[in-house]
Amino acid sequence: MRKSLAIAAALFSLTAAAKEPKNIILMIGDGMGPAYTSGYRYFADDPTTPVVESTVFDQLLSGMASTYPDEPDTVVTDSAAAATALATGHKTYNGAVGVDRQKVALASIMEIAKRQGKSTGIAVTSQINHATPAAFLAHNENRSNYNAIADAFFDDRVDGQFRADLMFGGGSQYFQRQDRDLVAEFEAQGYHYVHDNAGLAALTALPALGLFADVALPSAIDDKQGPRLAALTAKAATLLAQNDKGFVLLVEGSQIDWAGHDNDIVTAMHEMKDFADAIRWAKDFTESRDDTLLVVTADHSTGGLTLGAAGKYQWRADFLRKVPHSPGVIATRLGQEAEPVKALPALLGFTPAKDETEKLMNAKGEGDEALVKAIKRLIDKRSLTGWTTTGHTAIDVPLFAAGTGKEAFQGLLDNTEIAKRLIALVQPGTQGSEQLVKDKQQ
Amino acid sequence: MRKSLAIAAALFSLTAAAKEPKNIILMIGDGMGPAYTSGYRYFADDPTTPVVESTVFDQLLSGMASTYPDEPDTVVTDSAAAATALATGHKTYNGAVGVDRQKVALASIMEIAKRQGKSTGIAVTSQINHATPAAFLAHNENRSNYNAIADAFFDDRVDGQFRADLMFGGGSQYFQRQDRDLVAEFEAQGYHYVHDNAGLAALTALPALGLFADVALPSAIDDKQGPRLAALTAKAATLLAQNDKGFVLLVEGSQIDWAGHDNDIVTAMHEMKDFADAIRWAKDFTESRDDTLLVVTADHSTGGLTLGAAGKYQWRADFLRKVPHSPGVIATRLGQEAEPVKALPALLGFTPAKDETEKLMNAKGEGDEALVKAIKRLIDKRSLTGWTTTGHTAIDVPLFAAGTGKEAFQGLLDNTEIAKRLIALVQPGTQGSEQLVKDKQQ
Ligand SMILES: [Zn+2]
Ligand SMILES: [Zn+2]
Repeated sequence: MRKSLAIAAALFSLTAAAKEPKNIILMIGDGMGPAYTSGYRYFADDPTTPVVESTVFDQLLSGMASTYPDEPDTVVTDSAAAATALATGHKTYNGAVGVDRQKVALASIMEIAKRQGKSTGIAVTSQINHATPAAFLAHNENRSNYNAIADAFFDDRVDGQFRADLMFGGGSQYFQRQDRDLVAEFEAQGYHYVHDNAGLAALTALPALGLFADVALPSAIDDKQGPRLAALTAKAATLLAQNDKGFVLLVEGSQIDWAGHDNDIVTAMHEMKDFADAIRWAKDFTESRDDTLLVVTADHSTGGLTLGAAGKYQWRADFLRKVPHSPGVIATRLGQEAEPVKALPALLGFTPAKDETEKLMNAKGEGDEALVKAIKRLIDKRSLTGWTTTGHTAIDVPLFAAGTGKEAFQGLLDNTEIAKRLIALVQPGTQGSEQLVKDKQQ
Repeated sequence: MRKSLAIAAALFSLTAAAKEPKNIILMIGDGMGPAYTSGYRYFADDPTTPVVESTVFDQLLSGMASTYPDEPDTVVTDSAAAATALATGHKTYNGAVGVDRQKVALASIMEIAKRQGKSTGIAVTSQINHATPAAFLAHNENRSNYNAIADAFFDDRVDGQFRADLMFGGGSQYFQRQDRDLVAEFEAQGYHYVHDNAGLAALTALPALGLFADVALPSAIDDKQGPRLAALTAKAATLLAQNDKGFVLLVEGSQIDWAGHDNDIVTAMHEMKDFADAIRWAKDFTESRDDTLLVVTADHSTGGLTLGAAGKYQWRADFLRKVPHSPGVIATRLGQEAEPVKALPALLGFTPAKDETEKLMNAKGEGDEALVKAIKRLIDKRSLTGWTTTGHTAIDVPLFAAGTGKEAFQGLLDNTEIAKRLIALVQPGTQGSEQLVKDKQQ
């Protein structure tokens, strides 16, 4: 077997050398630890069939990734340090955007791709200058410097070129400021600017800037209007694929993390659906051609989410499917009702018990924040969802791969190793990708 | 690439057909969800080096497994249903030992292996008639029927043969009862009975029964005597390998789960070390030959363990390394001290603050149970460890593979699928293993 495997390995190396992916789609579920992908399977399950349907995550799972930052006293990363690791292949301190511990700028895969003549783009549900996309397109010692990071998207160039040919997400508040109108500056440089579904649909050429919200896009559970991440991903990949030399596209399901910080399981599951919809589109795109690699992972897990609580051997995703709005919207609407107790069943998607109703009404008397919290805790109690923190945790995150070159993204990889392997594919002439296939076959 | 991959796939099929593993070692970390394997990396890290050392789990990770049982209202399994899935390839209800929902016995990989002329064995740290090994060697509608399950180990045969040629673990209480002495009965049938390190070392031939404790083995953190799981695994594999037709060995790190139920992170990390030591031995054994497959997984995760709490971006494994005893032993020893406050630093491995000392002394006044709990909560607070339940959770568990045939154990597999693929390797003439390799290459 060892000898035969060696032959297979040689054949793999041969084909890998003959054909490397021209296009790379990297998708990051911010905060999407393994409890999120496991939970989403049961949330997405069709209750009318006798089987548990497999999700796109199940279909693509290839390994897991470690995420610890370059910090002396912790193994828990923030999104900026993790995104820097995934963009550059280097560990850094929490809060760092594309710089190392000495504040020195690290070359990102986007910059390397631009130097190779490829097109680059990002599609996210946060503001486009938020930590994760920022680490791919800018260098700043602190993720909180939103305006400086937005400025850098325009001011900093790679051999005279903009770092991204396409930017989709939210953030017009940072790009159309009183002191500087970056949208106008981008338009003056030939960027097509869009801000709604119609504009997105009409886009046929790069470069493009799409800002669909002042800050972040609305939560998926409450957004009836769009565009959502799958539409942004589809348009982005389609436009970027016009470049014969290929492209690198970063897609982020940004708000899984935010729902995790809020310990809000219903909102989290709908953000997972939004991200899964985008991955399904990217999977079909990738598998319909022979020149594209799709890698999906997370930067860390958020909230200490677990699928079980209170000693019971249960987690009730069926219950979560019934809740029609985010806890925030439920609270707001409840405040507008003349008879809130009567309105509760329709707003919650289930009829609370007498003591549960009393708790909610007491919380309502304490104000909106208390009511939102009470709704979340009621949903947790009913679904047996557990949380241990409003921050991040150190658990490894799942890793997924499809398409040409996916073999190099199997097993346990550190987040920096994922970046190194992607960069080796973008920058030919290095021994990177050959090396990887050998590693995999050991 | 697609065409070349197809050629590679064909070659893989060819080699798989030419050489299948003769020996299978299946290792189950009971309760070992991804927070345990991630956390163990940081617990096992050598603080004197600048890198985070990779663990045996990191080296072997190949995918993840879903674990939901055949239950109408829950996706959280117990150990019996999960072990039945891993032993037989069939989902069943929580509490079931090797039977389906209709209480019909399901053929286990051990029984199938015996019919193929292979040797079989188990090595566990629980009593050998506990849920996990029981599902491989017996059929009972309820895991709590310990005596009946012990009886079945002797009474039930496969074509006249015992189900296991080797059984190592605890449980003499169930095998040397007032109403029946199963040890004597096994000895009368030619089994070599051992019960300590010397006896284990002297064993040179099968069949063998080793019971090293009345019920379970001691917790790894407090056990200075042994034998521990690595020694049991080494002896078991060495003896079973005497059969030219091969063997199936089940190894269980049984008490990771128990520490999880107790929400006891220090004890859990030492059980992880005990299990990792056994896996390292099995990995070396497997990789030193060309006829053995090693698959490692968990049945579920326990306790809703998370590596972060209280909003802080930290998890302090370095702190956990300092604690020298289990919370139970610390509490017992504290009770024997004339000056407990003075004894605290040495017993805990760190010096508690004034308010922490007060809390511990107050708990001591309330009794042993309160003191153990207070010690665990202090360790959680210091290490920022989170728990959400004293039961199990629905999160997917990690999957690991090494050796001949490991290619079929990559990606996301349901726990029943793991069993089906293992059984297909044990039972030649089925299309099983060929099918599997094709699946993998899709
Ligand atoms: Zn976050
Ligand atoms: Zn358990």
